[in-house]
Amino acid sequence: MENFRFYSPTEFVFGKDAEKELGELLVGSGAQKVFLHYGGGSIRKTGLHDRVTQSLKQKNIDYVELGGARANPVDSLVYEGIDLCRNEGCDFVLAVGGGSAIDSAKAIAAGVKYDGDFWDFFDGKATIEHALPVGVVLTLPAAGSEGSVATVITKEEEGLKRGTGSDLLRPRFAIINPELTYTLPMWQTAAGVVDMMSHIFERYITKTEDVILTDRLCEATLVSVMEAARKIISAPNDYEARATICWAGTIAHNGILGVGRQEEWTTHALEHELSALYDMTHGAGLAVLFPAYMEYTLDEDVERYYRLATKAFGVPENHYDKKAVAREGIRRLKGFFIEIGMPVTLKEAGAKKEDFPRLLETLKKNKGNRFGSFMKLKLSDAKKIYEMAWE
Amino acid sequence: MENFRFYSPTEFVFGKDAEKELGELLVGSGAQKVFLHYGGGSIRKTGLHDRVTQSLKQKNIDYVELGGARANPVDSLVYEGIDLCRNEGCDFVLAVGGGSAIDSAKAIAAGVKYDGDFWDFFDGKATIEHALPVGVVLTLPAAGSEGSVATVITKEEEGLKRGTGSDLLRPRFAIINPELTYTLPMWQTAAGVVDMMSHIFERYITKTEDVILTDRLCEATLVSVMEAARKIISAPNDYEARATICWAGTIAHNGILGVGRQEEWTTHALEHELSALYDMTHGAGLAVLFPAYMEYTLDEDVERYYRLATKAFGVPENHYDKKAVAREGIRRLKGFFIEIGMPVTLKEAGAKKEDFPRLLETLKKNKGNRFGSFMKLKLSDAKKIYEMAWE
Repeated sequence: MENFRFYSPTEFVFGKDAEKELGELLVGSGAQKVFLHYGGGSIRKTGLHDRVTQSLKQKNIDYVELGGARANPVDSLVYEGIDLCRNEGCDFVLAVGGGSAIDSAKAIAAGVKYDGDFWDFFDGKATIEHALPVGVVLTLPAAGSEGSVATVITKEEEGLKRGTGSDLLRPRFAIINPELTYTLPMWQTAAGVVDMMSHIFERYITKTEDVILTDRLCEATLVSVMEAARKIISAPNDYEARATICWAGTIAHNGILGVGRQEEWTTHALEHELSALYDMTHGAGLAVLFPAYMEYTLDEDVERYYRLATKAFGVPENHYDKKAVAREGIRRLKGFFIEIGMPVTLKEAGAKKEDFPRLLETLKKNKGNRFGSFMKLKLSDAKKIYEMAWE
Repeated sequence: MENFRFYSPTEFVFGKDAEKELGELLVGSGAQKVFLHYGGGSIRKTGLHDRVTQSLKQKNIDYVELGGARANPVDSLVYEGIDLCRNEGCDFVLAVGGGSAIDSAKAIAAGVKYDGDFWDFFDGKATIEHALPVGVVLTLPAAGSEGSVATVITKEEEGLKRGTGSDLLRPRFAIINPELTYTLPMWQTAAGVVDMMSHIFERYITKTEDVILTDRLCEATLVSVMEAARKIISAPNDYEARATICWAGTIAHNGILGVGRQEEWTTHALEHELSALYDMTHGAGLAVLFPAYMEYTLDEDVERYYRLATKAFGVPENHYDKKAVAREGIRRLKGFFIEIGMPVTLKEAGAKKEDFPRLLETLKKNKGNRFGSFMKLKLSDAKKIYEMAWE
């Protein structure tokens, strides 16, 4: 086990009608003028927009709003948000939505307090030293951004999708009402499930030895997520299953499942290139890439994949052929992704083979020629993983 | 699943040499004059006392110290601490030790900021509204107080052992270096193990249905704790096993294993009477009482105990006789307690049968005649549980 720091100060308010506590939470955070940030029209359709603004009014909290955050949130909206937030003198950023609205809100919160270009934080040119406080009303369990330090933004012109993070960006509070996710289309639910599972894989697939407690917590969460996702296919309004997915999405990324170990994140890097180029749903890209990454790195540590296969994917133990068991685990993972309606090849996900050179070029710009901690990889390895994922 | 709030803002700094970060953490907390609180002489023997005071001096942080916190920490030391802390104008309370030093430190931190008698918080006469910030250097993994809201103090004269809690008492930071636990006698290690397992049982044994993710996280932690404890018997300096126990003790009580469910805490209440009357080690008292409590409440929900037996204690599934499986689980738990050197009967733990009326009398004072959420209990049930635990 490696030394670690675990810090998750976000106040999670979870359950039916949880959004009713919004006003109180904002008052408790000292918010006086809220910058309300969200995505498309869905929160208006569901009436959540009304309920949120109503609770602000009830507490006499002034607010300004900016919608339009979309999957793979873009820099232009962040710039717009920073200007508006500054001009209106907001002192709190409230995201209502999923990872996109939250990540965009976090970038705005940091950008407002910075004299330079907010992209400096994503470029490695500057470190976040101040930020407006952020709060969240979650509508899409997936990215785990409601409890994480991270934000990922796409610089559209250059096709760059990059992340940064800071404790200052951890939401002060996150309101999570599983009922708000009943209306999510299965596609989005499934992509969210892949996303949170991937957050666990990026932590689980490690060379750090003897972090058995964290291993088991990861496996417990993976098993629960898959079980709940299968229920939701036939019963989208199953409260318990939705609640499991919501909470799993949060703990998959608040750090608790990564303590004491070197984390990976290569597959996320490979996927970010897909999202940036094709505006591909992040979870769909991950469903395509993770089985390929696992296959490619299998020999690096068969024991690790053997454990994953037997403990998380229910493959029976067989000590005589651990590699076959490990491979069967990857096959089952792929089968699960198919079952919940996710693509498992780049071809069906809408990528084009002739774009591979371009994907690799931007990958090089973002990550250099060497990346990966579980297995040291070069661009040539990345190329092979994309090729394995092709069909 | 029930609605819940999960809030664990403590910064955990975990690993080898973690105490080297103490100075920085105190500076970050704005501490100017520290009230240093600890137990007996062990931190002097191990050199930890020197290292702690050295890091305070290096950061030019003034301090006053008060040792003497002992197992089942008492009110008299809290009064002394409050006076000293006030007179010296300390602005931060640092506990170096296990649950006793931390609980005592928390009570002092709350008492300093209160005009009345600090016992009012334990008596239900007042709610904690202000407290000095608290920090922790942990030396004994057991109580989980380093990440919890709770403090339990014994009012010696009346033989009352009572708890209270507040978010204000959650430590700002907790430094956890597993190496500091190498020198713990096996008895204390084992009692700590029972304590943390009990914190999980009090959450696991519930009537709330469909909190499967939390169930699995609980089971993962229980399995890991028992495995690590068995290793430590023969290899006290096994870093990974010590680390597992340390981290498990923290997450067993910071709330993450209780989300979404009604918690129990009856066995803790029954044990507090033993600790108060005999100054019994808390973990030892719990080792005696938990199997008896489980036996007594088995019929209340055989399925729950069946799950515990099969998932945490490795009893093979047998759907034809779930009760036998459940009972075998309790038997194995008792066996595990014996294996790590804990008593499993009141007789061997040093209780006296003629004291039962007295135990019940104080229990009535503390809890009334009705308690328990998993199974509604009366004093007459408590009497039966004590009797079952006798020999």
